[in-house]
Amino acid sequence: MNLILLFKNDFIEYTNSVQIKGRRLKHIIDVHRAQLGDRLTVGLENEKIGIGTITKLNKDILEMEVSLTIEPPVPSPINLILALPRPKVISRVLLSASSLGIKKIWLINANRVEKSYWQSPRLDEDNIKKQLILGLEQSKDTIMPTVVKKKLFKPFVEDELPGLIKGTSPVVAHPVTNNKCPGKINGPVTLAIGPEGGFIPYETEKLIECGFYPFHIGERILRVETVIPALTALLTFQTAPLP
Amino acid sequence: MNLILLFKNDFIEYTNSVQIKGRRLKHIIDVHRAQLGDRLTVGLENEKIGIGTITKLNKDILEMEVSLTIEPPVPSPINLILALPRPKVISRVLLSASSLGIKKIWLINANRVEKSYWQSPRLDEDNIKKQLILGLEQSKDTIMPTVVKKKLFKPFVEDELPGLIKGTSPVVAHPVTNNKCPGKINGPVTLAIGPEGGFIPYETEKLIECGFYPFHIGERILRVETVIPALTALLTFQTAPLP
Repeated sequence: MNLILLFKNDFIEYTNSVQIKGRRLKHIIDVHRAQLGDRLTVGLENEKIGIGTITKLNKDILEMEVSLTIEPPVPSPINLILALPRPKVISRVLLSASSLGIKKIWLINANRVEKSYWQSPRLDEDNIKKQLILGLEQSKDTIMPTVVKKKLFKPFVEDELPGLIKGTSPVVAHPVTNNKCPGKINGPVTLAIGPEGGFIPYETEKLIECGFYPFHIGERILRVETVIPALTALLTFQTAPLP
Repeated sequence: MNLILLFKNDFIEYTNSVQIKGRRLKHIIDVHRAQLGDRLTVGLENEKIGIGTITKLNKDILEMEVSLTIEPPVPSPINLILALPRPKVISRVLLSASSLGIKKIWLINANRVEKSYWQSPRLDEDNIKKQLILGLEQSKDTIMPTVVKKKLFKPFVEDELPGLIKGTSPVVAHPVTNNKCPGKINGPVTLAIGPEGGFIPYETEKLIECGFYPFHIGERILRVETVIPALTALLTFQTAPLP
């Protein structure tokens, strides 16, 4: 937790003080080993970042006086369209995407997404929000990502996707193409990533028809939790050659 | 398992047939749903890749006739020097690095590595090997990485590191610098990544003294499991601009 994410309802009415209990309090005591008077990095959901000075602390409650003056980091220009991964990795993937600053995530169906995945408790709103918060706390961000579930591939791609990709460079990771991965793209990017085993040819064709540029990242097949940071970095991180 | 990794002692003496039991057999039955006569992608540890044709299959044993004709994928040019991560993530990190084709990994001590991490059972040779194998199976590779543990920072950096980095571009991820991440580097790279909270100034200075180029990847603090694929991609993946 490199930043303690605060919410509107943490504030004591008509003050700039917050009250914290539960997971965050436990983390502040156990990991930060904070004491009365300590100053912690805090941020308010969808608002600025700043400092919280501890004014009360016991095992049940913590109070901080909060001053929020710094803009959160610039969001990632990537909008992520992700074939729903195995339940085992969904939490990790959401946390990682959130820490990378991705603000719009669509979890979509695909032929090789097992139907049972959609029943996973990891897809409950509460768990999704929990992972997004952990990602923001990791990367000192406050802007809450949105995650939208789309259980039908065809209507999503035909009816919604053309609107969603407007003003962005749409690209799809696809092992069966000769196109290399584009390097850094200027402006917003819509990145589509298929399920284990990849999108089936029909699905890739639909995406290409919609305007997506297919590219591969070499002969190695990587797990989705490895591919997302790799592609986010390649498509959006600023680099400068060695001097 | 995109490739079934075979070992010399899987072979029935004086034949090109293998016998498989245990985890790999279970995976072949449960996930591949393989049947007699099926052809599976296989590879022999540190040797070529090819096809295994199932000649016998029951719940206790599988036999395949194996033909190995294809070179494994080109290794990553990255040598990874990694401050020992939390036990909870060490397995994932080794699997991920192995799937990215990294062949040399040093797990080193640093001031902010908690001493207890070195006692973790995840650091047992058996678990390390298991994760490396899972990574190779993921990315259809056969070349087993080496993982070396270095519990003392100073003698490693002073006595061994100068030799290890010879002929490579040594770089260290370091939040407190103005240098941007280099893009793709030609030739071998030695990449050093610090612990949670980063290397302390003394440690970074020792690395810089040794010839390491410090660079940052933006204001977000990312987890080690997110940083490794991101930096591997930036420093080594071939890209080509959008047409």
